[in-house]
Amino acid sequence: MKKLVIAYSGGLDTSYCAVSLSKEYEVHAVSVNTGGFSEDEIKHIESNAYKMGVTNYKNIDAVATFYQKVVKYLIFGNVLKNNSYPLSVSAERIIQAIEIVEYAKSIGAAYIAHGSTGAGNDQVRFDMIFQTLAPNITIITPIRDQQLTRKEEIDYLKSEGINMSWEKSKYSVNKGLWGTSVGGVETLKSEKPLPNEAYPSQLKKEGEEKVTLTFKNGEFVAFNGIENLPELNIEKLNEIAAGYAIGRDIHVGDTIVGTKGRVGFEAAAALITIKAHHLLEKHTLTKWQLQHKEYLSSFYGMHLHEGQYLDPVMRDTEVFLQSSQKMVSGNVVVRLKPYHFSLDGIISEHDLMSSSFSTYGEENRAWTATDAKGFIKILGNQNKIYQQVNSKI
Amino acid sequence: MKKLVIAYSGGLDTSYCAVSLSKEYEVHAVSVNTGGFSEDEIKHIESNAYKMGVTNYKNIDAVATFYQKVVKYLIFGNVLKNNSYPLSVSAERIIQAIEIVEYAKSIGAAYIAHGSTGAGNDQVRFDMIFQTLAPNITIITPIRDQQLTRKEEIDYLKSEGINMSWEKSKYSVNKGLWGTSVGGVETLKSEKPLPNEAYPSQLKKEGEEKVTLTFKNGEFVAFNGIENLPELNIEKLNEIAAGYAIGRDIHVGDTIVGTKGRVGFEAAAALITIKAHHLLEKHTLTKWQLQHKEYLSSFYGMHLHEGQYLDPVMRDTEVFLQSSQKMVSGNVVVRLKPYHFSLDGIISEHDLMSSSFSTYGEENRAWTATDAKGFIKILGNQNKIYQQVNSKI
Amino acid sequence: MKKLVIAYSGGLDTSYCAVSLSKEYEVHAVSVNTGGFSEDEIKHIESNAYKMGVTNYKNIDAVATFYQKVVKYLIFGNVLKNNSYPLSVSAERIIQAIEIVEYAKSIGAAYIAHGSTGAGNDQVRFDMIFQTLAPNITIITPIRDQQLTRKEEIDYLKSEGINMSWEKSKYSVNKGLWGTSVGGVETLKSEKPLPNEAYPSQLKKEGEEKVTLTFKNGEFVAFNGIENLPELNIEKLNEIAAGYAIGRDIHVGDTIVGTKGRVGFEAAAALITIKAHHLLEKHTLTKWQLQHKEYLSSFYGMHLHEGQYLDPVMRDTEVFLQSSQKMVSGNVVVRLKPYHFSLDGIISEHDLMSSSFSTYGEENRAWTATDAKGFIKILGNQNKIYQQVNSKI
Amino acid sequence: MKKLVIAYSGGLDTSYCAVSLSKEYEVHAVSVNTGGFSEDEIKHIESNAYKMGVTNYKNIDAVATFYQKVVKYLIFGNVLKNNSYPLSVSAERIIQAIEIVEYAKSIGAAYIAHGSTGAGNDQVRFDMIFQTLAPNITIITPIRDQQLTRKEEIDYLKSEGINMSWEKSKYSVNKGLWGTSVGGVETLKSEKPLPNEAYPSQLKKEGEEKVTLTFKNGEFVAFNGIENLPELNIEKLNEIAAGYAIGRDIHVGDTIVGTKGRVGFEAAAALITIKAHHLLEKHTLTKWQLQHKEYLSSFYGMHLHEGQYLDPVMRDTEVFLQSSQKMVSGNVVVRLKPYHFSLDGIISEHDLMSSSFSTYGEENRAWTATDAKGFIKILGNQNKIYQQVNSKI
Repeated sequence: MKKLVIAYSGGLDTSYCAVSLSKEYEVHAVSVNTGGFSEDEIKHIESNAYKMGVTNYKNIDAVATFYQKVVKYLIFGNVLKNNSYPLSVSAERIIQAIEIVEYAKSIGAAYIAHGSTGAGNDQVRFDMIFQTLAPNITIITPIRDQQLTRKEEIDYLKSEGINMSWEKSKYSVNKGLWGTSVGGVETLKSEKPLPNEAYPSQLKKEGEEKVTLTFKNGEFVAFNGIENLPELNIEKLNEIAAGYAIGRDIHVGDTIVGTKGRVGFEAAAALITIKAHHLLEKHTLTKWQLQHKEYLSSFYGMHLHEGQYLDPVMRDTEVFLQSSQKMVSGNVVVRLKPYHFSLDGIISEHDLMSSSFSTYGEENRAWTATDAKGFIKILGNQNKIYQQVNSKI
Repeated sequence: MKKLVIAYSGGLDTSYCAVSLSKEYEVHAVSVNTGGFSEDEIKHIESNAYKMGVTNYKNIDAVATFYQKVVKYLIFGNVLKNNSYPLSVSAERIIQAIEIVEYAKSIGAAYIAHGSTGAGNDQVRFDMIFQTLAPNITIITPIRDQQLTRKEEIDYLKSEGINMSWEKSKYSVNKGLWGTSVGGVETLKSEKPLPNEAYPSQLKKEGEEKVTLTFKNGEFVAFNGIENLPELNIEKLNEIAAGYAIGRDIHVGDTIVGTKGRVGFEAAAALITIKAHHLLEKHTLTKWQLQHKEYLSSFYGMHLHEGQYLDPVMRDTEVFLQSSQKMVSGNVVVRLKPYHFSLDGIISEHDLMSSSFSTYGEENRAWTATDAKGFIKILGNQNKIYQQVNSKI
Repeated sequence: MKKLVIAYSGGLDTSYCAVSLSKEYEVHAVSVNTGGFSEDEIKHIESNAYKMGVTNYKNIDAVATFYQKVVKYLIFGNVLKNNSYPLSVSAERIIQAIEIVEYAKSIGAAYIAHGSTGAGNDQVRFDMIFQTLAPNITIITPIRDQQLTRKEEIDYLKSEGINMSWEKSKYSVNKGLWGTSVGGVETLKSEKPLPNEAYPSQLKKEGEEKVTLTFKNGEFVAFNGIENLPELNIEKLNEIAAGYAIGRDIHVGDTIVGTKGRVGFEAAAALITIKAHHLLEKHTLTKWQLQHKEYLSSFYGMHLHEGQYLDPVMRDTEVFLQSSQKMVSGNVVVRLKPYHFSLDGIISEHDLMSSSFSTYGEENRAWTATDAKGFIKILGNQNKIYQQVNSKI
Repeated sequence: MKKLVIAYSGGLDTSYCAVSLSKEYEVHAVSVNTGGFSEDEIKHIESNAYKMGVTNYKNIDAVATFYQKVVKYLIFGNVLKNNSYPLSVSAERIIQAIEIVEYAKSIGAAYIAHGSTGAGNDQVRFDMIFQTLAPNITIITPIRDQQLTRKEEIDYLKSEGINMSWEKSKYSVNKGLWGTSVGGVETLKSEKPLPNEAYPSQLKKEGEEKVTLTFKNGEFVAFNGIENLPELNIEKLNEIAAGYAIGRDIHVGDTIVGTKGRVGFEAAAALITIKAHHLLEKHTLTKWQLQHKEYLSSFYGMHLHEGQYLDPVMRDTEVFLQSSQKMVSGNVVVRLKPYHFSLDGIISEHDLMSSSFSTYGEENRAWTATDAKGFIKILGNQNKIYQQVNSKI
């Protein structure tokens, strides 16, 4: 029988695919955990998968890979798409696709199935990475091809003896290490925010809480003084910040297929980590490092969002970003509050404010008034020449 | 007697300058109001000026000019230096310098004095604009040149019969239409935030308040449905948001003289207006408009901050930004809350989400599954070719 | 009968289309002259068109439109794709597509046909512009759909009584105002240049010839002192430079469909005009105008090449470029020589070298040694601080 | 006696400095060879140095260092300032400054002298690098400070018993590995080219000559099939191309002090190597690698030119450029001709044209007409939506 790997989430769409494809293929269901699933959830997915008739189920734990291959660089680059969205889902899909195609190759599968529709971004990310890394594997997309309604899918599953409850939850939620996206009836239009209850975390704490993020070469190596793997520090920060319901926003952006899309998200750890990291950079990087990082990171985010992770320009950009982190080490104190947070400040031995050169706004030390006048005189030369030459005409 | 114009604020430094320069020059004191002074404050400055022995005092109301020449483009460009600071003071200084030099030329003054030190940014902005627009006017900077202590200045003033109280306030505050900067002992170092009481506005309201910003071609033309001049809408928004103590942050950035500087600010209207405007742009501009605007606006902010306002590239950038605003019209609803705010959504007849093309994440309408597959196949061509060519080696 | 407009060139492919489509449609053949056709050639195309059975033939003279809508901005931006190719063909196709779709709308045609294959760039440019400007017009592409061989097309035409000679010329040539592209067996591979004889112009002159290009606000308004429309000056320059066989090169670039393509071209006037214009800019624009123009122009060229002319970011960029040309006026003397050219220099009243400020490399005038030392001291501050802070660790 | 290192070239200015400074300091004369001096010239400089009374003379051979630290990256980045100048002199000065300051530190000198004037770029490059790498060393610049005429310098030397012939050559020439700059009376103004005889190389050969440049990971590793160090291949190419008088041009650009400068140059090897390397990149890099390299390289050149070599952003950029060269390996055939050259083509196993995907302009292989139509349909979505939404209003 023909071997097929399906990217399986346990939802209605991939369940429909699993059942119907099992008629024709030896179906290997794979879920890739990029931080969204608890152990219980994985067990639940597994048990469901076998109910759908798959030959084998495997969960791949890709949290560390996700951090190492993508999240790390999103932090180095302070990447927030359109200045707000940490690319939570976009980034996960890339790693999920890579893990799935590598698994498919490892078991000699000639087919990969995924449950994306033909309307959005995920199909592009999955197809492009599958096709690039495994040009000989055929991609099967029943949902995109058949365009069934939920009812038709449920009816089919019933007719196959699968009598599970498939009630559509009011909000579709996708959870991962780098944030949770939330879609609902409000995000289909432009006017309204998501209601409070649509977000996964609800306010449980009052007052303020100070936390300390320690970075070493740009990596989040300790939280509140306790060293750990960056991905675990991110998880821990997410847990604590959840009590303050921090990190909610709505992203409006361009899909790869040219439409505009709107999606809610909650990404406390991503936003706090990026803002803290960026502050540390403002103290330790030169003006031109900040400027050129901004250009490259903006495009890094765009290419990642658009599924172009395998373009070698991404590797070139990653080494630039890595190099820029040489001095980005120190502590950042963040104050968590209900629904928002603020940054207290930083301590770093690389802090460019801590030189003996000058105290901003106070009396200067390393240069004289004469130096300053000479500096300004010459700094203004080109505009003065331009004015002189062109005002006489 | 030699005619001299002094940029006069009424503080200790410019008072010292006014008195000492009056020995040698016919001193014309000028203050330029870019939104920071009330009528009472201006009267107070005026009366003080005459006590210092100046021949003439004039306040120039430059709020409308400030909006038209600079603030408008900062909104079009969503300019936040280092992703946080709306360039409140940087932008004001430019307009103040231009107004002063034009006034000096109008009265035939051969000298301009200002009270900047030799340590910071303001001297660069003032000198460069004066030198460019009036190459024949001589610039006099007693504070930069003499490097007196506060005590020496006060003693001198006393010896001249000026017995005013010059207590140094704990925080130095600069207020204007586009925000208030706050410096203090904390901002001389990197670790600590400014205390609550350092900020001009204190929390007075509870709960939430919805406000509506109406933009037309990128300009903030109505507030809560009432049409008015954009600069007045900004002022109104500032007043209302002040009750929520919104818009506090600390900017860390590069001074023009190469040091790092840290300054607190409160800029509720600037931050709310920019975030609201940016959201409207995300709905109405194309992906490439957003991308190229980001590049140009970032440099626009850098050049402005560094006093390069007279570089003709600024005019070129302004027409780009103006052109990009053609469809940026609509309403944005903002929710004000204690210390922060959020955006509900937008209504615009130019909203690119409101087409019949596709509903994001839902079933597509304007293309088929086959179209999508063809799109992705070809979109991935280059990476596939790269992989094919280079993996065989 | 259903009305159809065909983009008709008179070649084998569009002749095949014209004949076969005439069975089903009322065919209106349209050629758009962007500088490639002489009057004789147009008459020849017209007479052939009627032989193919079309209902009507029309030639649209779009040379002036081509200059005003595209070429002008390519000069303002000094656009050379991958630093060599003036985008001759890419730019023409855009204007041809716009003219054709406007004509189709004007006569109420519900169909447009073009002869592009499915392999290259032209199909993208045509389809995208047709679909955007006329979403209700159906696009018909027999060559792309049927993938016939030349022999099959010729046989079909014979069977329809069309007995013309359709020998394939060794090199496929596309001529227009902004250059002539040349494809041949050599350009299908990477190793070899096109032979001398493949190029349209052959060396006929010896020695050198000086010519003067006069620009006003960036536009090429006079040639050798004689004022004329820019597009006519370009044509005249092309004629004269042709005798020196100037302007040959091979472009290697990325197609819109993700492959690499190689194409020879001869574009004497385009290259000379751009290099002369750029030199004048180096004398008259500020450093930052040159820098930001480079960024925007590079993307302008990319978007144009990729058929994205209708993206509003192109209009935004055009006003930037137009604004930057305010002082780009003056004469440039160019020396034409066999196969190459060089620039003598420029005369402009906006020349920033002609100020009284400084003579490069000679003794300075507007500043002192002390000024220079102060300038350098402070200009180096950030690197010095960085070194001081980070070397002590 | 106080130890001083002087950057010594043997010309009038540095000879004047050497003699006058020897009164007060123990003068160590150092020349740094970045490819401009023959062994004979170095001997001549040495013998002159001792005539000037210096305590010690040392020539530092920095050709390999120059290549490894700067030239390599200029090639990776295809850096041509303002699209013409390979930054020959700018790049040399950086390395010379670094070598001199390191030498001064190694011998414990507390003073460094150089002969730059206060008008140009070199003073900035020297001062900034000296001050950054050796904040405690004092910089001495007699020429900048004293502003003597040539006659005054010659008279002084005579009075000190130095009776050498100091005729000013008509053209001031600076030779190095990466090109020779030429200044003269013509380059002080904008109108005229340098005369033929001002250039170091004169036409000696006729006809054409094919040469082959072999690149490995972007480095020029073999010339005409013979492997050698890149810097030696560059020298060899320069020698051969000199016979064709290739590589002449005039650079017009912005000095660091804000003026415009014009300088002739002859840089055959630099131009040929860059153009050959760039062609190889067009075949082997992806579209986005080419695009982002262009942005970064342009700034890399600007920063280098302006003496900002020690900014850590330069190191970040270098690793980006290095990473981008992974596949830039292959042969490029160049045709040398009198006064110009052309590129035949390339052979590379990483050539992205050599895939089985598609032959440009010919029938496509890896996708169908249906795929292409789907691709275009969706690629055009955003412009179509924009048109649909905004044309209805």
